[in-house]
Amino acid sequence: MKKERRPIVISRVQPAVDDGRYPVKREAGDRLTVTADIFKEGHDILAAAIQYRSQDTPEWQESPLRLVDNDGWAGSILLESNTRYWFTIEAWTDRFASWVDDVTRRAQGGQADLTSELLEGARLVTQARARAAGADADLLESVLARAGTADAQEARLDAFLQPAVREAVCRLQERVDATRYDRELEVVVDRVRARFAAWYELFPRSQGKVPGRHGTFDDCIERLPDVQRMGFDVVYVPPIHPIGRTGRKGRDNSLTAAPGDPGSPWAIGGLEGGHTAVHPDLGKLDDFRRLVSAAERLGMEVALDIAFQCSPDHPWVREHPEWFYHRPDGTIRYAENPPKKYQDIFPINFNCEAWEALWDELLHVVLFWVEHGVLTFRVDNPHTKPFDFWRWLIREVQERHPEVVFLSEAFTRPKVMRELAKAGFSQSYTYFTWRNFKEELTEYFQELVGSEMREYFRGNLFVNTPDILPEVLQRGGPAAFQMRAALAATLSPLWGIYSGFELCEGAAMPGSEEYARSEKYEIRVRDWSSPGNIVDYITRLNAIRRENPALHTLLNLRFYPSDSSQVIFYGKMTADRDNVILVAVNLDPFAAHSATLAVPLEEIGISAGETYELHELLSDERQLAHEGSVAIELAPATSPARIYRVRRWRRREQDFPYFR
Amino acid sequence: MKKERRPIVISRVQPAVDDGRYPVKREAGDRLTVTADIFKEGHDILAAAIQYRSQDTPEWQESPLRLVDNDGWAGSILLESNTRYWFTIEAWTDRFASWVDDVTRRAQGGQADLTSELLEGARLVTQARARAAGADADLLESVLARAGTADAQEARLDAFLQPAVREAVCRLQERVDATRYDRELEVVVDRVRARFAAWYELFPRSQGKVPGRHGTFDDCIERLPDVQRMGFDVVYVPPIHPIGRTGRKGRDNSLTAAPGDPGSPWAIGGLEGGHTAVHPDLGKLDDFRRLVSAAERLGMEVALDIAFQCSPDHPWVREHPEWFYHRPDGTIRYAENPPKKYQDIFPINFNCEAWEALWDELLHVVLFWVEHGVLTFRVDNPHTKPFDFWRWLIREVQERHPEVVFLSEAFTRPKVMRELAKAGFSQSYTYFTWRNFKEELTEYFQELVGSEMREYFRGNLFVNTPDILPEVLQRGGPAAFQMRAALAATLSPLWGIYSGFELCEGAAMPGSEEYARSEKYEIRVRDWSSPGNIVDYITRLNAIRRENPALHTLLNLRFYPSDSSQVIFYGKMTADRDNVILVAVNLDPFAAHSATLAVPLEEIGISAGETYELHELLSDERQLAHEGSVAIELAPATSPARIYRVRRWRRREQDFPYFR
Repeated sequence: MKKERRPIVISRVQPAVDDGRYPVKREAGDRLTVTADIFKEGHDILAAAIQYRSQDTPEWQESPLRLVDNDGWAGSILLESNTRYWFTIEAWTDRFASWVDDVTRRAQGGQADLTSELLEGARLVTQARARAAGADADLLESVLARAGTADAQEARLDAFLQPAVREAVCRLQERVDATRYDRELEVVVDRVRARFAAWYELFPRSQGKVPGRHGTFDDCIERLPDVQRMGFDVVYVPPIHPIGRTGRKGRDNSLTAAPGDPGSPWAIGGLEGGHTAVHPDLGKLDDFRRLVSAAERLGMEVALDIAFQCSPDHPWVREHPEWFYHRPDGTIRYAENPPKKYQDIFPINFNCEAWEALWDELLHVVLFWVEHGVLTFRVDNPHTKPFDFWRWLIREVQERHPEVVFLSEAFTRPKVMRELAKAGFSQSYTYFTWRNFKEELTEYFQELVGSEMREYFRGNLFVNTPDILPEVLQRGGPAAFQMRAALAATLSPLWGIYSGFELCEGAAMPGSEEYARSEKYEIRVRDWSSPGNIVDYITRLNAIRRENPALHTLLNLRFYPSDSSQVIFYGKMTADRDNVILVAVNLDPFAAHSATLAVPLEEIGISAGETYELHELLSDERQLAHEGSVAIELAPATSPARIYRVRRWRRREQDFPYFR
Repeated sequence: MKKERRPIVISRVQPAVDDGRYPVKREAGDRLTVTADIFKEGHDILAAAIQYRSQDTPEWQESPLRLVDNDGWAGSILLESNTRYWFTIEAWTDRFASWVDDVTRRAQGGQADLTSELLEGARLVTQARARAAGADADLLESVLARAGTADAQEARLDAFLQPAVREAVCRLQERVDATRYDRELEVVVDRVRARFAAWYELFPRSQGKVPGRHGTFDDCIERLPDVQRMGFDVVYVPPIHPIGRTGRKGRDNSLTAAPGDPGSPWAIGGLEGGHTAVHPDLGKLDDFRRLVSAAERLGMEVALDIAFQCSPDHPWVREHPEWFYHRPDGTIRYAENPPKKYQDIFPINFNCEAWEALWDELLHVVLFWVEHGVLTFRVDNPHTKPFDFWRWLIREVQERHPEVVFLSEAFTRPKVMRELAKAGFSQSYTYFTWRNFKEELTEYFQELVGSEMREYFRGNLFVNTPDILPEVLQRGGPAAFQMRAALAATLSPLWGIYSGFELCEGAAMPGSEEYARSEKYEIRVRDWSSPGNIVDYITRLNAIRRENPALHTLLNLRFYPSDSSQVIFYGKMTADRDNVILVAVNLDPFAAHSATLAVPLEEIGISAGETYELHELLSDERQLAHEGSVAIELAPATSPARIYRVRRWRRREQDFPYFR
């Protein structure tokens, strides 16, 4: 074995995903806390620093680490920009600090003669002096002059022990034993909307006002103010491309389309073009650009669907048959999951021999839409395409356009979902849709918040999708819609609805989670103000989210005790505890439930017996409390959820209405 | 970013220490269980294998992994030899298994025409046929012949689905998507005694029979049968080298030695030589060799002390002053931890400019003693020398002599102790010596057993050392000695005593853990059969250890409930539950305590209400029980500990004495 010197152990550097194989995710403006174990043999005093650079600022910068305890160190860096950062750690022996420690212990231990120690101190200062300039040089020069006088030993020692001398020498001295951590860890810093946003999904062709007539981008533009008033940030539209005719599905996913049936938007590609074309009935590319601009003007953005698959009529089928799967008889295979068949869709063979050209073309598709103003993509079924494809594609896009956000639409095995997030997806669909009970909700969110997933997996809680009408919504009526919306909007900074949810649409195909008369196969023109809608409720939820910074992040989520198995109780607070939100939700849409909630007074910083205010934000009602137990009743018909802002009474009297 | 293909994700490969930066430890004859997460996109069926090699057998070998659940895989390899192994994982798409799955689902789903699928199957079999020979070739040939007939489709399909065909094709087919884990993980396989041994520490110079006269290696040889009768495996002796005269310490660590004071054996080196010489009063090198052989004949071995430090009279001080620390005035620094001073010892500067020559010489010292028959070393204060020195030294020694075992004598901060074990030490001293209460013992051992430490840290529980006479032994009398011995001998497969323990020697320097009249500074001739000794107790403990394989390993340790805060209750069992040991210890040496123990019947495999036997092995008393609660009283004067062997009554009647 070769003799090697790595004098200092630097280990357990955090945050890191899978020991640094994948980047961690943060958002612009965050402060990244870095921790590590750093030590060497013996008793020398060490120093350490975070070294970091970014795609924007490729020169290494440095920020100090400090010893916390038990050989654990911590420090932080500010992630200013929406770009990629890399960081590592360097540690070294702080010779001068070690000398100060040694000589101090000798002096305090009563060692009479410190001549030898003072000579060593002078040597260290002399070395630092050689690297010093300006005020540093003057300061060190004065210490050395003092050391050379015939002053009393104690006075000469004191000259060395001045804090300013220590600071200067420690900064200027050679980094003896300098050791660097064996990895550079990556941080993908996204824009804040990657973490905090409310999504609204709509089918553009259904946005017209005349039943049966194909909606247009202009109809969408007219709908935008409604969506903005409800408080949504992202308007996500299913594929807007030409739809194939071969194998086209009819209403309710029937095998044969009737004349006039529009087909599934995910059967992409026809005579009119493929993934970079728009469906002629929606308008032209310029109309789409106008939609994007209109959303922008309202403070929103349009998210596009990326579904890398083709209808049999897609131009690629003709131009690049080598990109598809072939049967022994030479025909191209349609999508199947035996015994299910999807005759209107040809899957792409990502591992075909021409894979490099194929991948380039798929990247070109994404970049095309980025150039047309789209900064957010919802990616269809990413778990059926190779992880290394996504890793490459997302990095290629974000290196050019770091502001681009990708949402992974994978509902599959847990490790596959996590791997897609590790591979680069900014956000992920979750199992929330199927978590209805207190224990399973608690367990799932504790995993998102408490495991390594916290570093890379941003769950976007959709309450419904065109493919998923959860059973609780089919059966639970408006109370269920309110309950699920309140959960999604407050558990997570990312949530979304698929349009129709606000109208409490709950009709399903029998025995399934599929919508009856699914918009995937027909045009559905709706009355957006039809009776029984919960538009106001959703609007209030989004307003509460926006006004309360505690709800802008996931990782502060904590669950608290409630003595009812039907009532879940949780909270979020900002680091300064200035904004504290507590949420209680009745998970049973069919019956009222009472519960006693255990308000975490100590965490909030409220002393025992102190009076505090509970401001219920949905109803705007306020109550005073002065103990930790709060009894409530939640009746689904009136209010399945309570969202409290907690305010200390004494500390900030001006916040309390009696004193306004 | 370069396009890369790593089609299959292989992650969380275990066992690994710090993501494979350090080896895991096992012992010869162990089966190493390997687990990993393995998956790719989509629904293909995968196959995977452990690939491994050893220093003895450098060619890669392979052992299969099987899917357990949720994308988790497991397999194992046999670690036959005392050498180093490396393993990694390869995974690939099992095309034929995927085809079998697909065609089976189609057939079961009622697809009428399977012509295309059968053609694909034939293509895969044809490819495998091209790589086949002998019986494989004949088998595949017959399937292809059958596929080409005009037989009914079902019959042709059945030919493909024969288990033998599946096995052969899966074995012979090309490994499509073959992906290898990104690390090779190392396993240091020690001999079994690295895991399971009882140690006995003695000062050779105290083994004579005439008070005041320096003992010899021959005296040690005469003492060996005593030690062997007590059941010890390793006889560890402090340094046997010449002792310096300059700065020699007197009795009780006094600053000046009186004439005739022998000095500390750790002040190594004098006119007679250094680390490769023996103290002339002990005998000659040949006498030492005879001691090593005598121990061997008794089934024991001699462990030497490695203390890399020098007395001022050591030959290296003269020959290699560059290996030491120098003061500004050119004199060599003695050891200090201000305000403490150790004038009889010069520390070595492992980071001096001539470090490479120094390290080579230190390696030479270890190899010298290995060549003189020493296979176990107890290393003094390793935490004051660089970790990378130990990493290098231990690997250099073990690559030549894999049977060599190193015990780390570090009592320092937890991460430093762990790092030494990671760096290669086979065994480590522990905090056991200072863990007296139920919660702290439980917590410490749960860390050793339940954290990553289980993979690399083998704690050797010394009940005392020449430096540590724990307070409980100073105050608790013989009951405390029995209690601590019972704990050490049953909690851990590695335990040790420093001689005098069996005589319940408990006199300390006031207010310290140092022995009064410490053997470090004087010769102590003892009457090994003096009244009040616990030789029989220790002999019984070691016999129980030897006879019960459950006590040969640490990692099966489990703590069970006892309702007394003074009575700790734990157990160990072999994997087949054939040997089940339960231990209850009264931790209070001053008073009797009663407790109700919760016997873990389900873990042991005893049904509710089933009769079982508790065989107390210290007293050889037996009792029958048929429920999980067992009430006991432990009186320190008679028996501070009970060690039960649990036997099911019905299953093995011949084990039960009534039936013998």
